[in-house]
Amino acid sequence: MPEPNASVGSISVQEPRNLRPLRIAIFGFGTVGSSVARILAESKPEGLQLTHVYNRGVSRKRVDWAAGVTWTEDADAVLASPEVDVIVELAGGLDPAGSWVRRALESGKSVVTANKKLIAFHGVELERLAAIRGGHLKYGAAVAGGIPVIPGIEQGLAGDRIERMEGILNGTCNFILSQMEAGADYGMVLSQAQAKGYAEADPTEDVGGFDARAKLAILMRLALRVEVNPEEIIPRAIGDVAAIDFSYAKDLGCTIRQVARAQKTDGQVAATVGPMLVDLRSPLAWSRGTENMVILSGHYGGDVVFSGHGAGGHPTAVAVVSDLLALAHGSRRVELPAARAKVAVEFEVPHYIRFLVDDRPGIVAEITGALARERINIRAIMQKAGYPQHALPFVVTVEPCKSSALQRALESMRSMDCLLEPPLDLQMLE
Amino acid sequence: MPEPNASVGSISVQEPRNLRPLRIAIFGFGTVGSSVARILAESKPEGLQLTHVYNRGVSRKRVDWAAGVTWTEDADAVLASPEVDVIVELAGGLDPAGSWVRRALESGKSVVTANKKLIAFHGVELERLAAIRGGHLKYGAAVAGGIPVIPGIEQGLAGDRIERMEGILNGTCNFILSQMEAGADYGMVLSQAQAKGYAEADPTEDVGGFDARAKLAILMRLALRVEVNPEEIIPRAIGDVAAIDFSYAKDLGCTIRQVARAQKTDGQVAATVGPMLVDLRSPLAWSRGTENMVILSGHYGGDVVFSGHGAGGHPTAVAVVSDLLALAHGSRRVELPAARAKVAVEFEVPHYIRFLVDDRPGIVAEITGALARERINIRAIMQKAGYPQHALPFVVTVEPCKSSALQRALESMRSMDCLLEPPLDLQMLE
Repeated sequence: MPEPNASVGSISVQEPRNLRPLRIAIFGFGTVGSSVARILAESKPEGLQLTHVYNRGVSRKRVDWAAGVTWTEDADAVLASPEVDVIVELAGGLDPAGSWVRRALESGKSVVTANKKLIAFHGVELERLAAIRGGHLKYGAAVAGGIPVIPGIEQGLAGDRIERMEGILNGTCNFILSQMEAGADYGMVLSQAQAKGYAEADPTEDVGGFDARAKLAILMRLALRVEVNPEEIIPRAIGDVAAIDFSYAKDLGCTIRQVARAQKTDGQVAATVGPMLVDLRSPLAWSRGTENMVILSGHYGGDVVFSGHGAGGHPTAVAVVSDLLALAHGSRRVELPAARAKVAVEFEVPHYIRFLVDDRPGIVAEITGALARERINIRAIMQKAGYPQHALPFVVTVEPCKSSALQRALESMRSMDCLLEPPLDLQMLE
Repeated sequence: MPEPNASVGSISVQEPRNLRPLRIAIFGFGTVGSSVARILAESKPEGLQLTHVYNRGVSRKRVDWAAGVTWTEDADAVLASPEVDVIVELAGGLDPAGSWVRRALESGKSVVTANKKLIAFHGVELERLAAIRGGHLKYGAAVAGGIPVIPGIEQGLAGDRIERMEGILNGTCNFILSQMEAGADYGMVLSQAQAKGYAEADPTEDVGGFDARAKLAILMRLALRVEVNPEEIIPRAIGDVAAIDFSYAKDLGCTIRQVARAQKTDGQVAATVGPMLVDLRSPLAWSRGTENMVILSGHYGGDVVFSGHGAGGHPTAVAVVSDLLALAHGSRRVELPAARAKVAVEFEVPHYIRFLVDDRPGIVAEITGALARERINIRAIMQKAGYPQHALPFVVTVEPCKSSALQRALESMRSMDCLLEPPLDLQMLE
């Protein structure tokens, strides 16, 4: 972008802004898209001008408060238009969003997107394309919506060496689990989340951990400076967590949250997503409802915590408009080199294992024997009173061990016909 | 800064970085200065080169692990040197730091500083000078040390309209008050903080609220977009808070923290710094030790919380090095216009008032009468058992009222000879 000199008083001043406003086309006018338009209409930030809205069946999307906007169903025309400087891609998913973004960047336009999947899987390639063609790609809205984690890392923590991160990155899971903590049933609260619009009709992307995984992969690149294939991070669904687990967790001074975590030790990378036991004294336990939270642990600066509203139209739109303002002001990303890496290492952490058994003598001996054969040390065995003998839940917690060793131990228990369902094992965050 | 084109493969790529590294001179080689040098020596971030260290009596500062550095006592020579691109000012205070910064900016150099006082009082003028001469002024380290609040606001929340902020901005006060919460005595814990280096020999700047006030004024400009004279914010010292106040606060579901808060309502600005009652469910109550925390409430995005280590050599140095990297990568500030404003409005919040009396009949009637004359509604009257009648503490909490009305009511109680000391009134954050 040019940096013309403007005259202030009698002295020539370097003026970092474009004199001509950035002309913006929104692709996808759903909740976030209309919030972006709403903020632009109400706040009228200097240097930004909404000129186009593309959506299928755009006539039902048209609003009367967005003046001077061309409403269109012709994506090609907008992408080809020399009258548009920035595409705001809010359609989500890999296709057709990916091809719009690619075409926009190829023609030298800049792109602002909230598309975590696209950035997690193709971010590196798209950033390279942007650099080649002279445009910019910004995606502050892709992770943790209205919480400025991405600008915080890029602009404020670039001087540190971040070694570990834990995040609550999916508002739907946090809503479900924090409601379950308060006594609600999984199925009921999932339906409630769907009714409130927090969860999709097919909730797999959220409750299965795929959404959080994509966000974790993006943060790993920026914070840990490792480029990983998101599919190497195996997510665990939250659906197996039951009311009894919250009860046992409480006895252990914990609650349960869907946590996305990663660490880099001597260049070795570990990463995982799933429901975990979280100490009640950890900030992660304080997050309620659809809140998001990210904790970054720096070699020099120690822990930094960000929290706030990670989803929803307005918070996500704040991130989009902030990215647009950064583009308009000529702010460059502080782009630090990330190295390709495999997710090759396991966390060695304590685990919580909950069994549901048809009780008979010798069960504890068999289970503890199976753990001992993998050299896993038992920390505690807990059995609450008040459950029927033919469907008895009990819990074993174990000292830090590799997930693979624990999986082998659990596998070897499969033949025990007293187990009414596969044991549930959860990492314990300490 | 020039943006030369570099060639990658066969395609010309826009390269936002300078090819020549930024040459850095550190002014002030204390804890933070040596941490900055340490990070540069260990991490060797691309594009940054430490070339000079200025300090009085520099020979006793010299370290053997910082290669290629010129150690000097000649500030003028460094400021005049065409071999230096950026001054990192870590001396603090208005003078001589201010004149170094001014001279550096006048000669077109950039400046990175952790000097909250200088930025609070002269930031606007210095930014203007930087813009005129083509340099940049960055001060991410001036507020909340290693927590990226300033880049978070500038780059990630520029799209919101922030209406309210509350912060724990002084680690020394937070250390003292969180230790008092755990039962320590003010004088003892202040001595301990001085021994640990958390507090200065003269602790007025910290415990009197002046340090937090400067930081609040800086954040108000960036977040609320109002330029205020810091001296219009009247700080309250934490020294009047006693053990008994923590005990009553706990009964009220609260603790006590030094809070810096500001809000803008219809263009009217309120701001204050001092010890306040904080609900135990508020994130502000979770901060322990020297931690800092900032809560920003946006019109669109809701509350965003940042927390972490606000002080100390390494965390502050992370902010300094991050600012240096942003300069090296050509990242521009997203500079939003701030309007001059007076701190003219009072908060209307509930108050906690603690009396210490030589008990006799009629005291409560007199006190409640004085409050009633100012139309202040009483919320609760609390008196704990176990105190002697001649030095009896008791507490009155009142519904939201203006501080000025409460001050008039307290003033009218001055003539009551049963009051052993002036009542302590604290705002209650809700």
